[in-house]
Amino acid sequence: MSKQELPVIVRDETVQGCCPGLLSAPLDEEQAVVLAKVFKALGDPVRLRLLSMIASRAGGEVCVCDLTPAFDLSQPTISHHLKLLREAGLIASERRGTWVYYRLLPETTDKLAGILTRPAGQPLPTTAGVPA
Amino acid sequence: MSKQELPVIVRDETVQGCCPGLLSAPLDEEQAVVLAKVFKALGDPVRLRLLSMIASRAGGEVCVCDLTPAFDLSQPTISHHLKLLREAGLIASERRGTWVYYRLLPETTDKLAGILTRPAGQPLPTTAGVPA
Repeated sequence: MSKQELPVIVRDETVQGCCPGLLSAPLDEEQAVVLAKVFKALGDPVRLRLLSMIASRAGGEVCVCDLTPAFDLSQPTISHHLKLLREAGLIASERRGTWVYYRLLPETTDKLAGILTRPAGQPLPTTAGVPA
Repeated sequence: MSKQELPVIVRDETVQGCCPGLLSAPLDEEQAVVLAKVFKALGDPVRLRLLSMIASRAGGEVCVCDLTPAFDLSQPTISHHLKLLREAGLIASERRGTWVYYRLLPETTDKLAGILTRPAGQPLPTTAGVPA
């Protein structure tokens, strides 16, 4: 293969390309930085409520105009929280006319659920299993 | 039932007693506060690395003396991060002699994985599923 043909390795810096599993092997520093960003986005009650409202909506997407009234917060504050969820790869947005519509990116929550799942065949110790 | 016999309702404020599922129904404010605390504890690269080191250790527990050398951080800083993981219900600790030993509380990571898992029979929209 000539130099010209060498594939360009694009490092996937989203959680999609990250981390074999939090419970199966120590994370390296880069993996930890990528994953921490997503968990940090989830580490706020308003953002969790926004995400659950978006994820559980029949039809799959929600107008920002339907999210804001549920909170005693300004529209810019809600938009800021939505931006952090979007930057973490948890939701996507689309502007149509006056309003922005949000939908879950289930690939990311699937990935997180997998990362938090115990590796097969490796039962972890329970509270009863601590050596004396 | 007399007043004396009324059961005392102890509200479970850990993630164990929380939240039907992030993707199945909107969280209420109290559920969101409980859950956000755990995700916030995970929202830091050092804490994620500590948790993965503890969780993946054969034998199920790790001496703090084996954790600290992996980081370019002081012992008090590492201890602070471990305290936040402990307060979030993600790990437990036990002092034996000079050292403190840490182990994963897999009930909490199991619960988080469940909360992030799509509800059965409700496929969520994918990136291809956005209405035009």
